[in-house]
Amino acid sequence: MSHHSLYQRTGAFYNQNGDCDFVVWAPFRKKVDVCITHPQPQTWPMQQDDFGYWSVTLPIAPGARYVFILDGELQRPDPASLSQPDSVHGASEVVSRDFEWHDADWAGIEKRDLVIYELHTGTFSPEHTFEGIINKLDYLQQLGITAIELMPVNQFPGKRNWGYDGAYPFAVQHNYGGVQGLKRLVDAAHLAGIAVILDVVYNHLGPDGNYLNDFGPYFTDKYKTPWGAALNYDSAWCDGVRNYYLQNALQWLDEFHIDGLRMDAVHAIWDFSAHHFMQQLKEAVQALEQQTGSKKILIAEIDLNNTRYINPAEKGGYNLDAQWIDEFHHAVHSVLTGEVNGYYEDFGKMLHIEKAFRDTYVYNGNYSVHRKKNFGSSVVENPYDQFVVFTQNHDQTGNRLMGDRLGTLVSYEALKLAAAATLLSPYIPLLFMGEEYGEKNPFLFFVDHENEQLAEIVRKGRREEFAYFKFEGDFPDPQDVSSFDRSVLSWNIQENPAATMLAYYQTLIQLRKTHTALQGRGRNSMQVQGFGDSKLLV
Amino acid sequence: MSHHSLYQRTGAFYNQNGDCDFVVWAPFRKKVDVCITHPQPQTWPMQQDDFGYWSVTLPIAPGARYVFILDGELQRPDPASLSQPDSVHGASEVVSRDFEWHDADWAGIEKRDLVIYELHTGTFSPEHTFEGIINKLDYLQQLGITAIELMPVNQFPGKRNWGYDGAYPFAVQHNYGGVQGLKRLVDAAHLAGIAVILDVVYNHLGPDGNYLNDFGPYFTDKYKTPWGAALNYDSAWCDGVRNYYLQNALQWLDEFHIDGLRMDAVHAIWDFSAHHFMQQLKEAVQALEQQTGSKKILIAEIDLNNTRYINPAEKGGYNLDAQWIDEFHHAVHSVLTGEVNGYYEDFGKMLHIEKAFRDTYVYNGNYSVHRKKNFGSSVVENPYDQFVVFTQNHDQTGNRLMGDRLGTLVSYEALKLAAAATLLSPYIPLLFMGEEYGEKNPFLFFVDHENEQLAEIVRKGRREEFAYFKFEGDFPDPQDVSSFDRSVLSWNIQENPAATMLAYYQTLIQLRKTHTALQGRGRNSMQVQGFGDSKLLV
Repeated sequence: MSHHSLYQRTGAFYNQNGDCDFVVWAPFRKKVDVCITHPQPQTWPMQQDDFGYWSVTLPIAPGARYVFILDGELQRPDPASLSQPDSVHGASEVVSRDFEWHDADWAGIEKRDLVIYELHTGTFSPEHTFEGIINKLDYLQQLGITAIELMPVNQFPGKRNWGYDGAYPFAVQHNYGGVQGLKRLVDAAHLAGIAVILDVVYNHLGPDGNYLNDFGPYFTDKYKTPWGAALNYDSAWCDGVRNYYLQNALQWLDEFHIDGLRMDAVHAIWDFSAHHFMQQLKEAVQALEQQTGSKKILIAEIDLNNTRYINPAEKGGYNLDAQWIDEFHHAVHSVLTGEVNGYYEDFGKMLHIEKAFRDTYVYNGNYSVHRKKNFGSSVVENPYDQFVVFTQNHDQTGNRLMGDRLGTLVSYEALKLAAAATLLSPYIPLLFMGEEYGEKNPFLFFVDHENEQLAEIVRKGRREEFAYFKFEGDFPDPQDVSSFDRSVLSWNIQENPAATMLAYYQTLIQLRKTHTALQGRGRNSMQVQGFGDSKLLV
Repeated sequence: MSHHSLYQRTGAFYNQNGDCDFVVWAPFRKKVDVCITHPQPQTWPMQQDDFGYWSVTLPIAPGARYVFILDGELQRPDPASLSQPDSVHGASEVVSRDFEWHDADWAGIEKRDLVIYELHTGTFSPEHTFEGIINKLDYLQQLGITAIELMPVNQFPGKRNWGYDGAYPFAVQHNYGGVQGLKRLVDAAHLAGIAVILDVVYNHLGPDGNYLNDFGPYFTDKYKTPWGAALNYDSAWCDGVRNYYLQNALQWLDEFHIDGLRMDAVHAIWDFSAHHFMQQLKEAVQALEQQTGSKKILIAEIDLNNTRYINPAEKGGYNLDAQWIDEFHHAVHSVLTGEVNGYYEDFGKMLHIEKAFRDTYVYNGNYSVHRKKNFGSSVVENPYDQFVVFTQNHDQTGNRLMGDRLGTLVSYEALKLAAAATLLSPYIPLLFMGEEYGEKNPFLFFVDHENEQLAEIVRKGRREEFAYFKFEGDFPDPQDVSSFDRSVLSWNIQENPAATMLAYYQTLIQLRKTHTALQGRGRNSMQVQGFGDSKLLV
């Protein structure tokens, strides 16, 4: 890297002398102060460098609260805050990064060994916390999964959220257990032989509590995202923004011992620069791997059917380890349920499942009726374990109006077929919490906005989003606490058919791990033979 | 290609029976008619296919004028009109595409042999036409250049324009000589052993006379360009837009025997799809080459310092033949003139010239003060003849407020140094008309808008554009005919120092063609050794 604005840590960090370094990027401000609000109110001026980073070192104990004061006027929490105990609008908390780790023997997980279990911290356990997940690690170990994937844990508005409305990418959601809670979970998971993947959002910020615009040119009006202003990854001053998210990734992977990142909607990271942010991030992570000897995995959620993101650098790729592939889900789901509304109109035939197995991208240059354009490129040499597949996940369940799980839509036998298709495929399988025992509770969309106007916008947005599914009846209210409560796992696993289903999943995972014929990950390790519409696939 | 909406010709074409096929893309219209306005007014209904292409076949003689009627209301010229005799707002003209070619022995030009001469048809010759260029072919042959590059000849508003305000990409500017005039020029150039490169604009349309929006979703609001709405290359219905420009490229390269395209500001072609439009275009042109046996060259003007556009497909590239490289100009210009205002603030030292020769991209990942970001990627294996360099061109001359040529800014010796740097480099050299004899006339910015409001917007835009150059004095008025008149070449080549300079250019070009040491185009064919700020380069 040629410029010191890259790899500049921001936030509050204790140095070797036990003092706390505060650093914040605010290139257009004439004056920035740090204001300690608790326990002893006091304001300190910060010094600016050439690239707009302001810093000061103070003798401050952990637990202190602070805000930055911009140009003597605006009081704002730290954009790189680790802890927001009061809310997304309240003061930031100085947190010690010390933690006693026990996972020195853990060196990460290989991509080919991944069996991912996606979970939402708030609704996974009756405790609604990281501690609640720790209490289930034995269960997950017995199930056989090799990695948990946490939906975003960054601080979001209120107490209930999927996580994609996060306003503080560096902070750990306070009512989940905060910084110490997450570190304890990662440590315990590693001791149980389970990797931890974290879902991170680098394409937008939540609508409430995001004050980045007050600090600097974090956003650009050159591009639009479905969620508002696009982050500035390629215009003037973009290095400050890129550094912000690079530091974020390194915080999780290094300081928190996280094994991999699942990056949300990478197609909405608009970057036309010669050095794409994904490539830069991968290079930074490779440097970390070399330094620590620990394997780290980068997975993109992406809707472009473009192998550039996962191709190696010598093929002009960004070299990410893997990508999500929704089309596998759509193909299986639409055949099993018969649904062909909305985006399912591009699927629904056995040939789509056949293509999802053989070519990975169902749309690899052919015309998509739903998208009204030719879509995608071919997968040629990419091994199967560059693609994460699922027949259930948070989106495909929760983005149904009623949050209905596949288990409530199709027969028991169809459900078993879907599980086998996923778990015995040469792809990386991902399960959604509860599917392993046929959970019947829905997974609804829920928020907890303090601002009623915003809650209404969310309600309206959901209605519009589902307009084309032509649903008739009452819409669940995302803001109502019942949407959250109804989505918590029941853990009714003792009785049938749940117990049988659980045993079946255990067996499939065991089969996957032990059966030699299921170990192939290369492009030629599988032959797919379809028989037209006969619903038979060999 | 998997979908018939690709490679669908649009416009008016005579078929084998001598009837005229009219085809137009208007996917959201309920009804489209073609209205013959001359010689015999009559209206004919058109039939629509599944992808929004409307067509009808009529027994119509060349010379007829026509418009399309959209939904029975709007009368609009043909977006793929070949000829707009009255103006960008008038009816389109049916033109025969027959032409008696004499260039059967011409098979195109190799990239390594290019010595390009950029010219503007209106101001190059006293005739202001293609015919005027034909009259100068002997001169150009003696100069030794191997290709002329025509600034855009698409139909623009009024009679005077650089060409980048074109509203009819398929039409040939009427007062230049129209379709027949251009074909005669290409034919004559080929007989003189000179290739013809055409400057085409695929990133925006001019502000006046562009009715594409009435026909269909040609534009998107997902991205912004400096010139208004971005063309829709990657959203729903984009195949109709992509087809439009593919057909345009093929029209020039096939029907008009053009040898190559110089594509304007390719960085403003926003395309995030897996199959980038540049790649698709290259594939279409390769198919044409195979079919015709004639070599075609695609050159991008691009400001991204990203080799992806010119890398081969196996390296994830779009496989264009070459790109313009402004930095070479900026490095040489700023050292010779001492100018370090505006974008020249990133240049001005000998080390920049040194880097421009050795690394091609002066900004290859390092921090640009002017752009306020790290910029560019490294050129590794790309041969030198993938880069077009110049020390003068239409932009670098005409986008100075007073249109001053380098010859009026620096000493005679400095001018000769600049010429040698360009013509003896292993890059593809490009000259700007008149520089070969040290033309003193300026090349100003000029327009001829019918709409006075638009003329005022252009005036204001120029003032703002040059604000940061801190120019003091009167601004030339682009709309005033004197801006055009003053820009016409003087052709004062008989007397010194012009005659000496011309002889010098001839000698340099001759040297380039004959001297073995100057033939290397590979990355290791040249060693560059700088000596700090001593203004010496070996």
